[in-house]
Amino acid sequence: MLNVALLGFGVVGSGTAEILTENRELIKKRVGQEVNIKYILDLRDFPDSPFEKLIVHDFNIILNDPDVSVVAEMMGGSHPAYEFSKAALEAGKSVVTSNKECVAKFGDELLKIAAKNGCRYMFEASVGGGIPIIRPMMNDLTPVNVTAISGILNGTTNYILTKMSAGGVDFATVLANAQEKGYAERNPSADVDGLDAARKIVILTALATGIIVDADSIYCEGITKITEYDMDVAETFGYSIKLIGRFEKTKDGKILCMVSPRFVSANNPLYTVNDVFNGILVSSDMLDETMFYGRGAGKLPTAGAVVADILDIVSGLDSIKKLEWKRADAEDVADISEYSCRRVFTFEGTDVNKIEAVFGNIGQLVVNEGKISFVTSFMTEKDADELVAKCDMDLVSKFRIL
Amino acid sequence: MLNVALLGFGVVGSGTAEILTENRELIKKRVGQEVNIKYILDLRDFPDSPFEKLIVHDFNIILNDPDVSVVAEMMGGSHPAYEFSKAALEAGKSVVTSNKECVAKFGDELLKIAAKNGCRYMFEASVGGGIPIIRPMMNDLTPVNVTAISGILNGTTNYILTKMSAGGVDFATVLANAQEKGYAERNPSADVDGLDAARKIVILTALATGIIVDADSIYCEGITKITEYDMDVAETFGYSIKLIGRFEKTKDGKILCMVSPRFVSANNPLYTVNDVFNGILVSSDMLDETMFYGRGAGKLPTAGAVVADILDIVSGLDSIKKLEWKRADAEDVADISEYSCRRVFTFEGTDVNKIEAVFGNIGQLVVNEGKISFVTSFMTEKDADELVAKCDMDLVSKFRIL
Repeated sequence: MLNVALLGFGVVGSGTAEILTENRELIKKRVGQEVNIKYILDLRDFPDSPFEKLIVHDFNIILNDPDVSVVAEMMGGSHPAYEFSKAALEAGKSVVTSNKECVAKFGDELLKIAAKNGCRYMFEASVGGGIPIIRPMMNDLTPVNVTAISGILNGTTNYILTKMSAGGVDFATVLANAQEKGYAERNPSADVDGLDAARKIVILTALATGIIVDADSIYCEGITKITEYDMDVAETFGYSIKLIGRFEKTKDGKILCMVSPRFVSANNPLYTVNDVFNGILVSSDMLDETMFYGRGAGKLPTAGAVVADILDIVSGLDSIKKLEWKRADAEDVADISEYSCRRVFTFEGTDVNKIEAVFGNIGQLVVNEGKISFVTSFMTEKDADELVAKCDMDLVSKFRIL
Repeated sequence: MLNVALLGFGVVGSGTAEILTENRELIKKRVGQEVNIKYILDLRDFPDSPFEKLIVHDFNIILNDPDVSVVAEMMGGSHPAYEFSKAALEAGKSVVTSNKECVAKFGDELLKIAAKNGCRYMFEASVGGGIPIIRPMMNDLTPVNVTAISGILNGTTNYILTKMSAGGVDFATVLANAQEKGYAERNPSADVDGLDAARKIVILTALATGIIVDADSIYCEGITKITEYDMDVAETFGYSIKLIGRFEKTKDGKILCMVSPRFVSANNPLYTVNDVFNGILVSSDMLDETMFYGRGAGKLPTAGAVVADILDIVSGLDSIKKLEWKRADAEDVADISEYSCRRVFTFEGTDVNKIEAVFGNIGQLVVNEGKISFVTSFMTEKDADELVAKCDMDLVSKFRIL
């Protein structure tokens, strides 16, 4: 029998308790061993919960109990999640987590401590909720060079963008609606400003490259400024707008990591990833494109990933041990001003000649409501900014095309 | 250093040799050990190949060499693939394979032999080519009950259907074109009649249930009878037609396994899986829907999956050991006549009243070219057949809706 302790009895924590309990027999049959919840750490009491008796308020009870071999950290936030994880690993207890903030900030250090103490730090639930993505990247993609990743990594923003794309409703209204339904937090900044997606693309990039970049340092643009007009342009041009976390290996082997809303064309498999679903498209030298799709958040999907990690430990799968991340230094990271893609610009005005004089060969174009929207050829961030400055019309919006 | 022998130097075999050679350094770095190809078994010689010197014609050389600890079987077909795999496993050599026929027919026995001899039988490449699906089903979906699987499992037929859906071209023409491009075999029966997809859904079903059904025994309908008219109806109703391998657990816990062309609605993530790509949608009690997408065939994607299995063995991941399949007996398998879904029927004639008199409440309906096409409500196979018999108009085609 394996004893686990759950840290945090919120949405994911209670989902984990539920799966371990309801699928107890299935789990025993599949991994050949019973998995028992010995403690649940939370500040609150849960007098009406069937798990009431397992609740403890002091982490030391868990830390000092030699029977507990796995700790599932589902508290969120950096502190005390980091301190508890570190202490558990140093005591030789494996840690599984759904906490992307903690993995993105301290993953390199915690992996090192785990390796040193013969235990494991696992985080399948930290990216893509119920979508198996961490393990496939570690095992199935081992023999290939991952050259790029494009991910719809945040369910809240994808829900908002999906609703906006249906038309007739602006960002603020959809956000308020999403908050009512519990799809968005009261303080939605980490989602709508892109930081949550930034942490996740940083974790995926570390899996692809072995180098972990500071999530706060990458280019990160959210979805708050997207208008109904932008949505109309996207539809007219045959695209959808998605918040994309993007990793690319540049020609000189550097890491380019960014989050921004993008125009996604109808023949891209990410185009149909709607509502709260996530999709992660991985490009590699040998497999071409592989996509992983599913519920990126939610109680049971995320808890399912936590439990899968716990069961990996029970089964003795030891792939995580080999994981080592180096903290990125300046020369690992590409200069975003050199990043090249096609773009969609919208300017105030109707003078197409002026646009063509500045931007040269342009692709699709639409003039509507006193505005011009058009698709540019490939150009770097730097060149795009220079052309915008050169154009004496007012820029309304700009989007990168995926 | 780990020594492997490749059985078969065709498309997948040569791709495997290519990945192991070109990504040698990457692999060494990731798994901490060099992987060396010691032999390649083929009937032919390859005087112009850089691997010429590794070619052997006698399997016993491999079998009797204690240095070879892994055999990668990429010959296809049942014999001698089965005999060679069995002999290798009995000699304590792990076997990885891309051979779905062999896995579907002999997987239960070969897994048993592997477990007995402390080695492994692995088959990530047998389903979905470069898509990680076997391992995620074994590891990530361990704690959940898989309740249904819908898969676009055959790239050849998906290519043909994608081209047909673009319009103006019939099955025979597209098939001939696919054969020219090398996307379809000269004898395309295993693909277009659905047997290839049947073998794959049987393997996935075994992973979900622990029970392996005889692929030849399941309901299997190919794509050869699909017409341009059917494609038009699908488009009119907002669907695409895909060849779907389907597994469902029935209410009484039995296994329903079938292959047939289906109408797939635009909000299903399989709808946009086009050309030679595969997509596998897994439904479970805890994760809702998870989809795996990528190149389902092709030299490097399939070889990438073979190499991932080899590297799992190098890394000592031992999940496969626990895999045990029981051969299905009659009471494990559901009676297809009780299978219920909505359908699209096309009859000769234009008399809508007649149709409504027989089929009652129907959904979308179109009358065109002297034919009536319509969507039925949910009904079992048996009831559907009875209603068709009752209707005194000629049935042109029938499709299940996914």
